Amino acid sequence: MGLSLLGALDLLGVFVFALSGATLAVSKRLDVFGVLVLGAVTALGGGLLRDVLLGATPPVALQRTSLLVTTLVAGLLAFLATPLVERLAGAVRLFDAAGLGLFVAAGTTKALDAGLGAAAAVTVGCLTGIGGGVVRDVLVGEVPVVLRREVYAVPALLGAALVVAADGQVLPRGPWAAGGAVVVFGLRMLGVWRDWHAPVAPLHRTRTR
Amino acid sequence: MGLSLLGALDLLGVFVFALSGATLAVSKRLDVFGVLVLGAVTALGGGLLRDVLLGATPPVALQRTSLLVTTLVAGLLAFLATPLVERLAGAVRLFDAAGLGLFVAAGTTKALDAGLGAAAAVTVGCLTGIGGGVVRDVLVGEVPVVLRREVYAVPALLGAALVVAADGQVLPRGPWAAGGAVVVFGLRMLGVWRDWHAPVAPLHRTRTR
Amino acid sequence: MGLSLLGALDLLGVFVFALSGATLAVSKRLDVFGVLVLGAVTALGGGLLRDVLLGATPPVALQRTSLLVTTLVAGLLAFLATPLVERLAGAVRLFDAAGLGLFVAAGTTKALDAGLGAAAAVTVGCLTGIGGGVVRDVLVGEVPVVLRREVYAVPALLGAALVVAADGQVLPRGPWAAGGAVVVFGLRMLGVWRDWHAPVAPLHRTRTR
Repeated sequence: MGLSLLGALDLLGVFVFALSGATLAVSKRLDVFGVLVLGAVTALGGGLLRDVLLGATPPVALQRTSLLVTTLVAGLLAFLATPLVERLAGAVRLFDAAGLGLFVAAGTTKALDAGLGAAAAVTVGCLTGIGGGVVRDVLVGEVPVVLRREVYAVPALLGAALVVAADGQVLPRGPWAAGGAVVVFGLRMLGVWRDWHAPVAPLHRTRTR
Repeated sequence: MGLSLLGALDLLGVFVFALSGATLAVSKRLDVFGVLVLGAVTALGGGLLRDVLLGATPPVALQRTSLLVTTLVAGLLAFLATPLVERLAGAVRLFDAAGLGLFVAAGTTKALDAGLGAAAAVTVGCLTGIGGGVVRDVLVGEVPVVLRREVYAVPALLGAALVVAADGQVLPRGPWAAGGAVVVFGLRMLGVWRDWHAPVAPLHRTRTR
Repeated sequence: MGLSLLGALDLLGVFVFALSGATLAVSKRLDVFGVLVLGAVTALGGGLLRDVLLGATPPVALQRTSLLVTTLVAGLLAFLATPLVERLAGAVRLFDAAGLGLFVAAGTTKALDAGLGAAAAVTVGCLTGIGGGVVRDVLVGEVPVVLRREVYAVPALLGAALVVAADGQVLPRGPWAAGGAVVVFGLRMLGVWRDWHAPVAPLHRTRTR
């Protein structure tokens, strides 16, 4: 039951990440194929990068058909019912934060399972959560929003660091991963609610003149 | 003989894909190195992505020197004789469609050989045919044309789906792959001839205000 | 001692490549996370591509924590002390050329060790030296400078070609790799000093009208 709950949450994360990519594609006037591709890339890109870096090929995204099908359903929904999806923006942001938490926790755990060290596991975990959005933004010609102003990274880093730091302490890996996912989710929603932004270096004079 | 014909067609596909990338690079004012790189990336990028995802490393593109050399010849031709290449645009489009067919069929077959399921094999097949062009466009700062308006995707999807659906039916994998390549080629040329475009979602009001 | 010198040079190359990425990120107004990511991607991207293509996963960049930590130190420095880093532009260019030489030589050698042929080894060597900068430029929405006008490629190609051509001649692989690195470094600095640019194809009339 725990497993099937996790599986359902996983699919929900994929669905919502795909919605975010597909909605961006619609607003950028991509055609229906572009909308489906951008949805799939956003939802599956982070996991693909993780699996390729870990040498775990073929990647999970190519082995579990349900993941790919889920992104296509989300893409079609965004294409056919854009106004509805936009009206649900609040809910989408909530699930998006949940997806981020799940992806980061799963990526960090998989990296630890593969025998990576602490810093590398945190890196792979964050890449799993954020990589799909980076590829999404690059494909539509934008500088990735996560590198500019959205506070995705701090929740992801702290959550991944918790999973790594707690590894082997008292509880097995699974519960700590769940805890990490919750931390990511909570911090991300707090960031959205308080409109947190990461600092930018001061524009210094020799550049602006 | 059948094999050497296929090998020749394969090189022709690589040559023409490289021409398309290199010609774009010339029109974007890249230097000679940029022209050669863009040609190579366009021709070999899809296969590289396929092989990395399947874990078939080092990729074929790094093992068969003839492929790399072919892209360099095409790149030099586009650099030194741009007007000639542009006058041949009609022929290039024909061979480009042929290359798309071959790449999609070969990619789908390789994915089936690697034991992937139906949806994943179709995905990998389309990625093999389209991936190089996506990387090409991203490198010159454009939203990939295949995501915006060119009907590359429908022929690729249908051809790959045919290869997958027919797998194990009556004939061995080879002839069905050839049939898939022909379907891709025919539909693509039909799309070019009739100027087909994939639909775009209606711009809806809340966005334009 | 030879080894520890090489290791120190390697870290220095990583440090300076990271500085270049992080400084660009600051000038593009990325937030602190974006600055650290761009530094890491610039310094480690070429090696990541090399290792993924060679199937040498997990990549070295994820196995040696010192590499990742070095990029973070460089990124923080660029973020906190931008004016200082800019005043050191001359020194950075010197070390950047040294890093290019080391990366190209190391990448070519690793490709030869993996059994690749001559053309593929040169390709992988150049990709190791140049790949990080390409990803850096794509992430901030620019056409990679190496494809447009900077003469990075010719030194990289010649240095990699030397390592490949000399392979098995008189000396073992190590000294030739060192020689290749020196060639890359020397030619690159010569190019900077003389302001060399690679040729661009003539803009021909049918395009400009």
